[in-house]
Amino acid sequence: MSSKKIGILGASGYTGADAVRLLARHPNAEIIALTANTHAGKSMGDVFPHFFMLGLPKLVEWEKVDWSRLDAVFCGLPHGTTQEIIAAVLKANPKIKVLDMSADFRLRDKNTYAQWYGHEHRALELQGEAVYGLTEFYRDKITSARLVACPGCYPTAALLALVPLAKAKLIDVDDIIIDAKSGVTGAGRGLKQNTLFSEAGEGLSPYSVGTHRHAPEIEQEIGVAAGSAVTINFTPHLIPMARGELCTSYVKLKGATPDDLRTALEQAYANEPFVHVASKGVLPQTQNVRGSNYVQIGVVADRIKNRAIVISTLDNLVKGSAGQAIQNMNLMFGLPETAGLEQIALFP
Amino acid sequence: MSSKKIGILGASGYTGADAVRLLARHPNAEIIALTANTHAGKSMGDVFPHFFMLGLPKLVEWEKVDWSRLDAVFCGLPHGTTQEIIAAVLKANPKIKVLDMSADFRLRDKNTYAQWYGHEHRALELQGEAVYGLTEFYRDKITSARLVACPGCYPTAALLALVPLAKAKLIDVDDIIIDAKSGVTGAGRGLKQNTLFSEAGEGLSPYSVGTHRHAPEIEQEIGVAAGSAVTINFTPHLIPMARGELCTSYVKLKGATPDDLRTALEQAYANEPFVHVASKGVLPQTQNVRGSNYVQIGVVADRIKNRAIVISTLDNLVKGSAGQAIQNMNLMFGLPETAGLEQIALFP
Amino acid sequence: MSSKKIGILGASGYTGADAVRLLARHPNAEIIALTANTHAGKSMGDVFPHFFMLGLPKLVEWEKVDWSRLDAVFCGLPHGTTQEIIAAVLKANPKIKVLDMSADFRLRDKNTYAQWYGHEHRALELQGEAVYGLTEFYRDKITSARLVACPGCYPTAALLALVPLAKAKLIDVDDIIIDAKSGVTGAGRGLKQNTLFSEAGEGLSPYSVGTHRHAPEIEQEIGVAAGSAVTINFTPHLIPMARGELCTSYVKLKGATPDDLRTALEQAYANEPFVHVASKGVLPQTQNVRGSNYVQIGVVADRIKNRAIVISTLDNLVKGSAGQAIQNMNLMFGLPETAGLEQIALFP
Amino acid sequence: MSSKKIGILGASGYTGADAVRLLARHPNAEIIALTANTHAGKSMGDVFPHFFMLGLPKLVEWEKVDWSRLDAVFCGLPHGTTQEIIAAVLKANPKIKVLDMSADFRLRDKNTYAQWYGHEHRALELQGEAVYGLTEFYRDKITSARLVACPGCYPTAALLALVPLAKAKLIDVDDIIIDAKSGVTGAGRGLKQNTLFSEAGEGLSPYSVGTHRHAPEIEQEIGVAAGSAVTINFTPHLIPMARGELCTSYVKLKGATPDDLRTALEQAYANEPFVHVASKGVLPQTQNVRGSNYVQIGVVADRIKNRAIVISTLDNLVKGSAGQAIQNMNLMFGLPETAGLEQIALFP
Repeated sequence: MSSKKIGILGASGYTGADAVRLLARHPNAEIIALTANTHAGKSMGDVFPHFFMLGLPKLVEWEKVDWSRLDAVFCGLPHGTTQEIIAAVLKANPKIKVLDMSADFRLRDKNTYAQWYGHEHRALELQGEAVYGLTEFYRDKITSARLVACPGCYPTAALLALVPLAKAKLIDVDDIIIDAKSGVTGAGRGLKQNTLFSEAGEGLSPYSVGTHRHAPEIEQEIGVAAGSAVTINFTPHLIPMARGELCTSYVKLKGATPDDLRTALEQAYANEPFVHVASKGVLPQTQNVRGSNYVQIGVVADRIKNRAIVISTLDNLVKGSAGQAIQNMNLMFGLPETAGLEQIALFP
Repeated sequence: MSSKKIGILGASGYTGADAVRLLARHPNAEIIALTANTHAGKSMGDVFPHFFMLGLPKLVEWEKVDWSRLDAVFCGLPHGTTQEIIAAVLKANPKIKVLDMSADFRLRDKNTYAQWYGHEHRALELQGEAVYGLTEFYRDKITSARLVACPGCYPTAALLALVPLAKAKLIDVDDIIIDAKSGVTGAGRGLKQNTLFSEAGEGLSPYSVGTHRHAPEIEQEIGVAAGSAVTINFTPHLIPMARGELCTSYVKLKGATPDDLRTALEQAYANEPFVHVASKGVLPQTQNVRGSNYVQIGVVADRIKNRAIVISTLDNLVKGSAGQAIQNMNLMFGLPETAGLEQIALFP
Repeated sequence: MSSKKIGILGASGYTGADAVRLLARHPNAEIIALTANTHAGKSMGDVFPHFFMLGLPKLVEWEKVDWSRLDAVFCGLPHGTTQEIIAAVLKANPKIKVLDMSADFRLRDKNTYAQWYGHEHRALELQGEAVYGLTEFYRDKITSARLVACPGCYPTAALLALVPLAKAKLIDVDDIIIDAKSGVTGAGRGLKQNTLFSEAGEGLSPYSVGTHRHAPEIEQEIGVAAGSAVTINFTPHLIPMARGELCTSYVKLKGATPDDLRTALEQAYANEPFVHVASKGVLPQTQNVRGSNYVQIGVVADRIKNRAIVISTLDNLVKGSAGQAIQNMNLMFGLPETAGLEQIALFP
Repeated sequence: MSSKKIGILGASGYTGADAVRLLARHPNAEIIALTANTHAGKSMGDVFPHFFMLGLPKLVEWEKVDWSRLDAVFCGLPHGTTQEIIAAVLKANPKIKVLDMSADFRLRDKNTYAQWYGHEHRALELQGEAVYGLTEFYRDKITSARLVACPGCYPTAALLALVPLAKAKLIDVDDIIIDAKSGVTGAGRGLKQNTLFSEAGEGLSPYSVGTHRHAPEIEQEIGVAAGSAVTINFTPHLIPMARGELCTSYVKLKGATPDDLRTALEQAYANEPFVHVASKGVLPQTQNVRGSNYVQIGVVADRIKNRAIVISTLDNLVKGSAGQAIQNMNLMFGLPETAGLEQIALFP
């Protein structure tokens, strides 16, 4: 099978770099364009020295890319700047497949978007066209999509744990508490004081409590599963590790037992290559998925009656971003869904 | 004022060592005995090289200590072995003050003790005599006590956040979810695979979910505050940092607002030297208290109606153990409560 | 090409686990036996939960393995216990290929072995037969070998930097100072106080200065290159990271310039798939090779006249252990040398 | 004794903050002015939340300070901006004591300064007046000084290890190799990509090899000790820890033994409160001094004949900066030299 020709927009960020890491070894992909407007003219080895062993195209400004040569583009640009660039790319080459790893096309409701992102959406038709790229729930739509809005890292972890339970009406969707913990790469490569080693190391900080932009995305999809609008608690914490995300979700049971929850999850993911439900008594931990596209989910009984705890973990840069984008690309090109994605977690 | 003569049992563990760190610079204390049965004969510098600048007594077996020379003893021995040793110490010197940092005397109910620790209590009269050493709630009893059972690190963090709210009936005590995060020193200095650097680093693990022995201690004290038995959710996570503990408590409001909760906490701790309630909008983080005896508590509104989030943080080895023990000792000897304890957090 | 049938002895240690990680995805390998005598009967998921996604054989005692079914065995057992077990394996199946990752067969001189390991070697004929498995220097011998003694992690890093320079007589081999830094996995998975997270984290410790067992291995091979016995300085430091090793080697020049050193290294490794010489001005760092089989080497001029600094880095569990063993296995079976080993470093 | 009134310039940086941490608990000091021009108007709790328990003056612009009210000023401003500000301060209040923690007055030779800092010195008379603030070597001069140029963190660690040996002519000063390792706070609080948690964590990077500005400072002082100009090797490495510095110095012996070196150091520091020479066989580690003003030095025999290894460690923000400045302030005011500085290392 000939290789698909790939461009990566925003290759100087962490999600862009993880897309490079995976695509450079993908059996059916060839990276032929890399953009990073503030680093145009540099080699990737200048901005990410761990790519010293790869021959990669130089970084260019996105405006310089010849879109007609590309089969697919991965977009790791900041939220807000993405929508207009993707509109331009699709105008230049309407057949190109777009894997957007930003938040720009994840929310279906234009008002919700405007409320959380502070401005009207600037590519409304594309917002309508975009498919939410949580592979396990939207596989069919993704397969035939042109533009896939890959979910945020937290939503992927939370939704894989909760959607099957909401769908099966095993839990009360009006009483979902998601205590979320993320490694520091989740904050990106931009320079911020709170992500300096000396600030984030050896300590633990809750942040954006009640205001994190992944909350409406989670509510949107649990709402779809439940058939009604929901409001959730979503409380993120910054953890002194580079990669990894773990959601501890506290749920109220609706006539179900914790074992029923586990069974429902096992059934939902019985044929999924990347989502594993842990046996009773086994607790997921981020170490188990670091650097991999795998997700691990476990269910534990709560000491409070009629409550349970659902724990889910993934690598925020892989299944939480670049890996899931590649999984979707595989579907869109009719490739084996797992192609290029079967790396085992790097532990220790 | 003449110095109080102090012995530390179990000086080769982390709580023992932090007691040494603080007491060696305490203006009214003199360390004259250190025990560690498996290291008897060694100097403290052999087992904790960061004490190279101190002249300290050699480690001896606890049976070798002349209790009549001591005014107070700090006990950092493992759970279970403590009760008989303390009984022997008090028999040898009934006037000695005992600051127990183990779990042996924390639970008042002998059945609860037996259920959670797997054996009958072996010093029942002392269990009855012991005062629960959460300074802010039991100051009067501590002042006149002979044996103080210093609380666990998690209970101190959780109870300081929740007891004033339970007492004031602002929250539903049957729906308390405590998502707890601890640094690795919480697991002690014993050799365990999961606390190796290569295992605990760069990752995050829930552990003892539903089975952690600090749960009954929290329930006991919230029950006292509420006037009825309660069952709570307590879900601990191991975080890749050495020190620090943060509890994110999710509570259901009983006709109160999040601001009411903050006000109640501010009133409860208005005159407390070590407990600070953060202003609205300020989120506690473990970095703020590392190495110090301070506690920081914050309140945030939940997006779910009638719910709030209470966040509390402390250093598990200081206010969560040795520091609080010294705070209690100061009370017991009529010393200024803050003596030797005003170190500011070490950040970064 | 049919898959080679592989057994891994000592699969519950870190080098064993990294061999599993890589071999489970190797295109020409099938893991059919895993041993760990203290964990016999368990699944690999019990001892390394990050393998949850793999179907692997259960752990058994090494005595239970049917060696006739195996094409190759990787040995990750502790030093000292290995020699007799390998002798037994080769007696049971003389055609099996042995990739030993322990130190047992690395030293060619029996007296040096006895001096550094404290006992006579217990399989002297095999010691004579074993080929030192530093692929880049012994490729031909490895290709036809039955028993390969894969080098230690430090020796691989140091020798790749220094051997070409010693061979070309560009440096004074009697004045080599190797300041070595290693991540904590280098100390293995055994329970030791100094490798606990709370001890090794947030700090830096020199260790085994002047007494580390990798010194004679480095001296042996530099001696071969120089044609005379040498004594080196080798000073290891424990660094708070899990993986990675970096050697900063200080050398005295013999009529050469730092650029001459770089040129000599570039020539030596021009056709090597895994060894890269950094351009002038680029400094190697462990982050560039984490989780990968790559090695990066750089040369910097010293401010002291006639001196230079050679910096080399690798992942101690990959090119420093399991990865190099697989690279050697590929040679021994006539497979492409890079098969299963082209993962890019996991950064961040 | 009445408290000395203190101002801290550059209080929003790490050295400024550590001066606050220590001075806020100093028995003879009162902080009455804090400056940080980019944060003027904020409280210290806004820029360093771990000071929540302190009542501190608001941050102001340095131009707003009334210098006549101050007895001493600590200066934690960036290199280059300091010289003119200090000139202005001393003009406004010629009796004020200045503890400069920047590099501006450390080099005595104006040409060396211009060469390494890229511009002519802008306060040459003050450069002449300034006393190099390595307390142990310049105690008398410091006692009567008005302006003390506190040494860099690396020079303090290196010089305490090497100066007594150079003075006693026990080592060859033309063959000194200093392999230096620093925690990330050494790079300051400014936003740089290489000090982000995700970049600096879990990895190790040499940096500024041959070009670090602490090299001429070390050469200046070894030159003074040796009585002749010297050129040294100084090779810094960035280590994934916040605090701590360790220098592994490789020296050639001049007719001396390693034990002679240790003896010389023991004699040099016999009466020093903060410098400890480790017993034979004991290796210094940064964990032993974290957060403290102590220095630990050890000597080990090299395997290469006539060579030795001298290892020294300190906390870069304490004895490497703010702590040493306070030690000097104590001398300048006739206070006990150890006042406010006897905190024991925070371990773990």
